[in-house]
Amino acid sequence: MDNRFRGVFPPVVTPLTADGQFDEESFTRSINRMIDAGVNGLFVLGSSGEVAFSTDERRHAITEAAVRIIDHRVPLLVGCIDMESQRVIKHAQAAKELGADAIVATAPFYALGGQAEVERHFRLIHEAVDLPLFAYDIPVCVHTKLQADMLVRLGREGVLSGVKDSSNDDVAFRFLADKNEEAGHPLALLTGQEVVVDGAYMAGADGSVPGLANVEATSYVRQWRAYEAGDWLTVRKEQDFTAHLMRIVSAPQNVQGFGAGVGAFKTAMALLGVIKTNQMPEPVLPLKGENVERVASVLREVGLKPVVSADEVSESAHIRGV
Amino acid sequence: MDNRFRGVFPPVVTPLTADGQFDEESFTRSINRMIDAGVNGLFVLGSSGEVAFSTDERRHAITEAAVRIIDHRVPLLVGCIDMESQRVIKHAQAAKELGADAIVATAPFYALGGQAEVERHFRLIHEAVDLPLFAYDIPVCVHTKLQADMLVRLGREGVLSGVKDSSNDDVAFRFLADKNEEAGHPLALLTGQEVVVDGAYMAGADGSVPGLANVEATSYVRQWRAYEAGDWLTVRKEQDFTAHLMRIVSAPQNVQGFGAGVGAFKTAMALLGVIKTNQMPEPVLPLKGENVERVASVLREVGLKPVVSADEVSESAHIRGV
Amino acid sequence: MDNRFRGVFPPVVTPLTADGQFDEESFTRSINRMIDAGVNGLFVLGSSGEVAFSTDERRHAITEAAVRIIDHRVPLLVGCIDMESQRVIKHAQAAKELGADAIVATAPFYALGGQAEVERHFRLIHEAVDLPLFAYDIPVCVHTKLQADMLVRLGREGVLSGVKDSSNDDVAFRFLADKNEEAGHPLALLTGQEVVVDGAYMAGADGSVPGLANVEATSYVRQWRAYEAGDWLTVRKEQDFTAHLMRIVSAPQNVQGFGAGVGAFKTAMALLGVIKTNQMPEPVLPLKGENVERVASVLREVGLKPVVSADEVSESAHIRGV
Amino acid sequence: MDNRFRGVFPPVVTPLTADGQFDEESFTRSINRMIDAGVNGLFVLGSSGEVAFSTDERRHAITEAAVRIIDHRVPLLVGCIDMESQRVIKHAQAAKELGADAIVATAPFYALGGQAEVERHFRLIHEAVDLPLFAYDIPVCVHTKLQADMLVRLGREGVLSGVKDSSNDDVAFRFLADKNEEAGHPLALLTGQEVVVDGAYMAGADGSVPGLANVEATSYVRQWRAYEAGDWLTVRKEQDFTAHLMRIVSAPQNVQGFGAGVGAFKTAMALLGVIKTNQMPEPVLPLKGENVERVASVLREVGLKPVVSADEVSESAHIRGV
Repeated sequence: MDNRFRGVFPPVVTPLTADGQFDEESFTRSINRMIDAGVNGLFVLGSSGEVAFSTDERRHAITEAAVRIIDHRVPLLVGCIDMESQRVIKHAQAAKELGADAIVATAPFYALGGQAEVERHFRLIHEAVDLPLFAYDIPVCVHTKLQADMLVRLGREGVLSGVKDSSNDDVAFRFLADKNEEAGHPLALLTGQEVVVDGAYMAGADGSVPGLANVEATSYVRQWRAYEAGDWLTVRKEQDFTAHLMRIVSAPQNVQGFGAGVGAFKTAMALLGVIKTNQMPEPVLPLKGENVERVASVLREVGLKPVVSADEVSESAHIRGV
Repeated sequence: MDNRFRGVFPPVVTPLTADGQFDEESFTRSINRMIDAGVNGLFVLGSSGEVAFSTDERRHAITEAAVRIIDHRVPLLVGCIDMESQRVIKHAQAAKELGADAIVATAPFYALGGQAEVERHFRLIHEAVDLPLFAYDIPVCVHTKLQADMLVRLGREGVLSGVKDSSNDDVAFRFLADKNEEAGHPLALLTGQEVVVDGAYMAGADGSVPGLANVEATSYVRQWRAYEAGDWLTVRKEQDFTAHLMRIVSAPQNVQGFGAGVGAFKTAMALLGVIKTNQMPEPVLPLKGENVERVASVLREVGLKPVVSADEVSESAHIRGV
Repeated sequence: MDNRFRGVFPPVVTPLTADGQFDEESFTRSINRMIDAGVNGLFVLGSSGEVAFSTDERRHAITEAAVRIIDHRVPLLVGCIDMESQRVIKHAQAAKELGADAIVATAPFYALGGQAEVERHFRLIHEAVDLPLFAYDIPVCVHTKLQADMLVRLGREGVLSGVKDSSNDDVAFRFLADKNEEAGHPLALLTGQEVVVDGAYMAGADGSVPGLANVEATSYVRQWRAYEAGDWLTVRKEQDFTAHLMRIVSAPQNVQGFGAGVGAFKTAMALLGVIKTNQMPEPVLPLKGENVERVASVLREVGLKPVVSADEVSESAHIRGV
Repeated sequence: MDNRFRGVFPPVVTPLTADGQFDEESFTRSINRMIDAGVNGLFVLGSSGEVAFSTDERRHAITEAAVRIIDHRVPLLVGCIDMESQRVIKHAQAAKELGADAIVATAPFYALGGQAEVERHFRLIHEAVDLPLFAYDIPVCVHTKLQADMLVRLGREGVLSGVKDSSNDDVAFRFLADKNEEAGHPLALLTGQEVVVDGAYMAGADGSVPGLANVEATSYVRQWRAYEAGDWLTVRKEQDFTAHLMRIVSAPQNVQGFGAGVGAFKTAMALLGVIKTNQMPEPVLPLKGENVERVASVLREVGLKPVVSADEVSESAHIRGV
């Protein structure tokens, strides 16, 4: 496998201004903060990077900015998320032109198919765009689970360079890791979970893609280095810390899905002064009032000090009436 | 409700050339054939119109051609299918500029949310684009079922003009029809099923959107007119015919989903000489060999005579090696 | 097919006393009321007959009472619902001994399997117990959809006598009806839906199993007779009536599933004086207070007059503290 | 928490004779072998103990034999698996009378409900039967996921003594472990997975319930002891071994679900001479021919030597024609 793709690769959250525009200044601050913390790479336009909500123009702006800000300090993976092959390929071609180091694609979605179409889909993307290709296994979004045998086969043939596993199926991940090992480890296996990275390392993961690292990357970096050093106690201790911090996601009441998850990430980042607002992409609304307080409480529980008040964050994003 | 949106509105299949390009000549022939059969409107870029597979350029070409070919003979609905609000709005603006009479949008998909986001999504689209808006209820693709109370509320407020129901939930459709009636019938309710249109009419549907009408529209037109005339025996008799014809979809072996469904439609249309090839959009493969024979057999069973041989259809589409 | 199994076959709700015992007096009244209304048969220990909640002793008591009360006036179907073959066969043997005219079994559930096990399951039951056997297609409970080809094959071979379809998949039901017809109609096809019986009759159903008939059977009987006479206007008119009445099920707030559905049936029956309490089987709680009022309101909307006050019904069932 | 419930608690597979009877001799040998290997307890009538397939008489025989064979050498948990509260309580009462040390119950299944019914269900069982109660979280069978907050609340109140987690949701398990810890660790948390026990220990599990221990218990015992000693390298090494061995489950072709999983366990046990046949409960068929060979190959790959030939095992179980 390509050794550039080992370690902690946070999926970069996309900050917005009060009125919903891409906030490049906050984006720059957040990226630099994560690189300074020692992350091994970055992944833009992932699910938590609001790729589904972003127009092609917005996607272009995000990728272009990421390439410029990162400036080759770490590898940049770019999510090319769309329904079927031709649409994905368009995004992948754009990502390559803009300077991505690797691209990330899911199984096809919306239209129904079988594993044959999934496999052909990855082959078509690889054929069309000469960049390392990661398969993004995220059945909660695309409603197809990628099969380990197919992934390893595509790894061996050089079609896939790695897998970003957000399937929340640790049993399947374990078998994938074993089969990958047996095949000579062609695939870089990155877990997309925040709170069970320790188990994924036990299973043989080559790294992680924790959205929570947007809030606090240093712990994931220490955990990775401890894993590399065989220091399992530290691996576990850091996981305890991030598992507690991850409660920001379940803290908001009466909000579900993306609005709770990425909504809490953005709110925590705004409380910590990393980004200016906790604005969310339409049709999702930003967290307000008590939900912001709840996120702030969790931050304080783990020893992270908000530098912006909950009231300010609560007022930071404009909600349009429709 | 807007009386333009009553009757049979086939979702137009998108013919491709042997090498996968948009085949406007076949598209013209197919559209004219359906209008001549007496359909009340047409719907392009629906699920069976391969919207998920089409790039923005392809979508543009299809809509532009449909507007030109139809030339106001019947109303044209255009599917604006994408993951979240801003992406859908881009498609809707393009459809309006090109001359669509109405637009059709699903619930958001890919990113997870709740009913609040779904409702806000439709309001945002309506606010952004001044065209009649149909909600497309297709949980098999988007994994969210639209709630009847929300639909009727949006109908009463003028946000939605109608619903295209492909939920295969006849109980929910019945309740939707009742609530719509009680609210003064603001919504045009179109069923997206092929073989239970009779039941939908019993329940009070205002029309149908049967993909199978690409193969044979006259039966659906006769059924609709019989329904309008209160002639339930004919409604049922025509349904028996189209239910039998619909077996083309289950005839292919070892193919699933879109490749079987729309694959069979295209194969039947090619056998009947309506379109030139049964080519499918990547990563889906066209039906070949015995599967084409199986479709031809069903056509003959119901008295439709293929004018192109199964061998010719089987050879009509090029499959690229990857 | 066996002509005894045509027409309206209500699944009999099991009335309980205030403290949760089987209330045979109310059961007698309810059964007689339905037979007097003209139903063609009865089905005890179905899902709405609370089979899942009943111990073997309770099941025995219900079947024994039903046989005695009905006294051959109409055929009696008995649900033999359990996880796997040997457990189902025990129930089926008991039902036969007690005098059932037919037995009803679902696909296996709890343990995972495939269609091969499902088919073998029905063959084993048929081999073990010499009574007409109905397959109960209820994926919402057992998470397996019965395949039409298998059902018709088992029908042709004399393993199955009929199907009770509660799959809420009208498209599949239509194909099942067509295939059954083509095979010489070996299976009696009964729809388990309340509000789309008209559509099922259009599709060729041989009858219906509407839980709502416990509240009001005469409308379903009139609908069936109208269908037999080819009077589709009446079929539809009666459906409009029962569809409106069925709103009792969605009327309760903050209750879901069985507690709302059968809870509303029992509450309506208690309001109409058919049964003494609206008690539910543990761990489900009976409807109380405003939810009883909501059910009463729907009854009045369709012209059914409660003869017991909502307050009395609300107080009729004892809730044990745990 | 009750310290009796820490460590390795294999769910005991139920051996059958060639003609499907309970094979107590093999059962005795298997139990003794696992106790000799050092397991901390045993769990009969779990999902892999074929509880769903066993009549009440069979369940009685299995529990009675287990109590007698184990003779208090280790604690015995007994699965009381049925659809709803009253049926479960009957099984629980029987288990108590026969001498179980603890009982295990799932959420209600078959009938639909909400979390309120689930919680009441566990309270009712606890109230009715004075034995430590484990909640069995197995959504793949019962289609309800148990919520961490509810489990910890019931733990704090003394209703539940532990959780057997077979949800394959490691993220949820991690949060459950954290909340349990915060509440003073009232619940014994046992993971039901075979190949990610290491990750579960990292997350704070108090033990494991690996079906694979029927084939090979010593590795799980060594892993547990290593975990207790903080020796993570051994924890991981033992997991590598059992993960490879677990491939027996994916080795069989054209078999799915229980027939592949427990079918492979029984086949491996028969090959190793632990049990006499690989017979399965109806309607599931035993593995035969090449599938037995495939299981034997995996055994040899990890260094376990079959002492019975694949041919003999393949002929060991009688299949009845129906």
